[in-house]
Amino acid sequence: MENRVKRNGVGVGLKLMTPEQQQILRQSVQELMPMAADIFDEVRTASQDSEGVTRPAWSAEDHAAGQTLLRAAQKQGLKTRTDDIGNIYASLPGRDEKIPEILTGSHLDSVARGGNFDGLAGAVAGVAALAALRRAGIVPDCNLTAMGIRCEESVWFGIAYIGARLAVGSLPRAAFDALRRLDSGRTIAAHMADVAVVADNIWRHDTPEISAANTRAFLELHIEQGPLLIEQATPLAVATAIRGNLRHGDGVCYGAYQHSAAAPRRLRQDAVLAVTELLQRLEALWHEIEDGDDPSAVFTVGKLFTDPDHHAMTKVPGECHFSLNFGSTEQGSLDRMAKAIATLTAEIAPRRRVSFALGDAVGSPPTPLDPGLRGRLSAGARRLDIPCVEFATVGHDASIFASAGIPAAVLLVRNGEGSHNPHESMDLEDFERGVQVLAATMVDLAGA
Amino acid sequence: MENRVKRNGVGVGLKLMTPEQQQILRQSVQELMPMAADIFDEVRTASQDSEGVTRPAWSAEDHAAGQTLLRAAQKQGLKTRTDDIGNIYASLPGRDEKIPEILTGSHLDSVARGGNFDGLAGAVAGVAALAALRRAGIVPDCNLTAMGIRCEESVWFGIAYIGARLAVGSLPRAAFDALRRLDSGRTIAAHMADVAVVADNIWRHDTPEISAANTRAFLELHIEQGPLLIEQATPLAVATAIRGNLRHGDGVCYGAYQHSAAAPRRLRQDAVLAVTELLQRLEALWHEIEDGDDPSAVFTVGKLFTDPDHHAMTKVPGECHFSLNFGSTEQGSLDRMAKAIATLTAEIAPRRRVSFALGDAVGSPPTPLDPGLRGRLSAGARRLDIPCVEFATVGHDASIFASAGIPAAVLLVRNGEGSHNPHESMDLEDFERGVQVLAATMVDLAGA
Repeated sequence: MENRVKRNGVGVGLKLMTPEQQQILRQSVQELMPMAADIFDEVRTASQDSEGVTRPAWSAEDHAAGQTLLRAAQKQGLKTRTDDIGNIYASLPGRDEKIPEILTGSHLDSVARGGNFDGLAGAVAGVAALAALRRAGIVPDCNLTAMGIRCEESVWFGIAYIGARLAVGSLPRAAFDALRRLDSGRTIAAHMADVAVVADNIWRHDTPEISAANTRAFLELHIEQGPLLIEQATPLAVATAIRGNLRHGDGVCYGAYQHSAAAPRRLRQDAVLAVTELLQRLEALWHEIEDGDDPSAVFTVGKLFTDPDHHAMTKVPGECHFSLNFGSTEQGSLDRMAKAIATLTAEIAPRRRVSFALGDAVGSPPTPLDPGLRGRLSAGARRLDIPCVEFATVGHDASIFASAGIPAAVLLVRNGEGSHNPHESMDLEDFERGVQVLAATMVDLAGA
Repeated sequence: MENRVKRNGVGVGLKLMTPEQQQILRQSVQELMPMAADIFDEVRTASQDSEGVTRPAWSAEDHAAGQTLLRAAQKQGLKTRTDDIGNIYASLPGRDEKIPEILTGSHLDSVARGGNFDGLAGAVAGVAALAALRRAGIVPDCNLTAMGIRCEESVWFGIAYIGARLAVGSLPRAAFDALRRLDSGRTIAAHMADVAVVADNIWRHDTPEISAANTRAFLELHIEQGPLLIEQATPLAVATAIRGNLRHGDGVCYGAYQHSAAAPRRLRQDAVLAVTELLQRLEALWHEIEDGDDPSAVFTVGKLFTDPDHHAMTKVPGECHFSLNFGSTEQGSLDRMAKAIATLTAEIAPRRRVSFALGDAVGSPPTPLDPGLRGRLSAGARRLDIPCVEFATVGHDASIFASAGIPAAVLLVRNGEGSHNPHESMDLEDFERGVQVLAATMVDLAGA
């Protein structure tokens, strides 16, 4: 264990590594990149569809991805296991296996016809980082664990982050039991059984699988799903926070179908022009918020449609559906938008002789990410001379761990063409940069 | 022929009727209302569907409507015939059968699951008016003819006014031969053959069936398709003009699908918010035109939709379809809107990083209705003490006759719940008022 990092007080593990030791770790990460590439290829092949990859959680494809990762981890001498949920773990044991561990990882599942790296990159990065640490002969003070998480995208069941929620115990059994595959109505337990996960076993523990009592930190590497790193020619970013959001998935405006020429303006009940006014005024508020003190604010109307069974060019539209999706890292901005939606619909409806039915708002509060962990990641990148910026990110499993009281952070890797599509493109060189920062930061934290 | 109206110069026929003669004509119209009600019932029964009536042109149902009308007209002693197009005619012969005649009527076909009165009311009114004149013993100077016109709605073939266009010779043979039923691709000639109309015969004449040379005027009674007469508690209106229109049936805005949270505003290519801005600005222009000097202006976005195969609440929408339909009796207003569509799309597209594909504009110029005929109809109503107002109307067969140089006018009858739906509701009392004015005006014109 000649390369073991000496323990010397709080948070100084990495700093005490000699330049030679740091060089050995860098070299080890580099040497593990062919392994990482092989895992990406094997998983991609196993979950290939006509365009990209499709890996619904607890499908055969998703299960195979976990098995590939477990095999690779075992080959690298890591200690592996699977929990009762089907989440997989690969650990580098610490000097003291009883003290709380440091966790990294991301999800294994994908959307339909999605890309291979969204989620998987973070799970592979964890295994590669731990394998590199082991190869470099580093024995951390506490266990370091890489996790492959089930069901973040949750294309079959609609509610996101199911694997992480079950792991931290934040999904109540009644809610779990009610989950059905959206298109077929088949229960989530039946799908789990397909890959030998016994749903009843999830509930046999008194304490959750993962908690602040057994986990000191959660670090998630994930491809960036926007274009900012490409635009800024920077390989990495540390996320400042995960945006919360305020969503209305199926808003409807009801007016009345009328003759497009015979109905005079003062008697019209035009659902489309009413929705159009609402959207323009909400967009204006978004611009005001974003131009003001909240650059994280985003506003999207992803769905907008008149009724194909009744609409016609020659009819005043009597119905118009729309979704509203506002995101921000600032609760104040979310509250402001919620108030505007209520005020504007109440003002527009009587004036335009229509009614709005928005349904209940769904969404999540913003998740601040741990300033200490963010600082460690940024410092790690700096020491490695890897350019790294900061900005807010979107929903990730990290938010579930943060909500459970575990300090969490997200490291974003440059990626082209967004995500949730077959065209996402992360260079393996950027992936390696991410793994370098992840491995170094885990040592840094473990030494603390 | 003791009740025959004496000929006494130009346009004074009716005025010379004695109060007693006028009373006899009123009585005759009243007496013919049970016949009219029977025709409506018989046709409704023969073309009933699950909700309303369905009478596509040259269908068995549409053919049956014509046969019902011909039988009723024959029973009333009118002279009937069918042209090579399948349009039907019932005439009250004039003293001089060689001079140009006066024509009235409307279409027999309906939209799918439509109402019984849209079109049919005008054809029945013509037969009832001529039967009443005959019953009153009135022999007009020229032939008076009621027409049942084929294929105004044209639900099968897409292009409206086919029966009238063929009758006046304004539909070229090549365009006719290209017509196919939209859903099945079957030719229009095959559908005509189903009801024993030989399409080839349409083209055997050197001169059109109906022209300014053989027709002095065309009067069309039609239910109002808007709510104005109900709102104004008035049974009748004389139309000032038929609105022209400017239409884009399938406009598309192309942007790019992006992550709803990860894509920053300055890089978004949001098709929905781009279309929303366009629509709000076009609506503002409509209000400006309508508040200004053109109260006839109407603007409708009947269809608006993101792509159901790709849209999602969590994606910036990369595509948005929309229809534009602007109507006005003023060519200047149509030109102004066309210019605004071009200017606004050119301005919005680069600023929002999207593109617009509107396709070619389709539409029709406004059709002024004949001031002389409008005055005769209004005067006829005044003499009968029937309240009658004036406003612009929507597309009717009358526009085709007007385009062929035949002075044309439209008499609108109060009707609830709009048209093109099973709920349209015209009171037979209002219908009778319309027939009274129509019959009196035809005598007036015939005496001219």
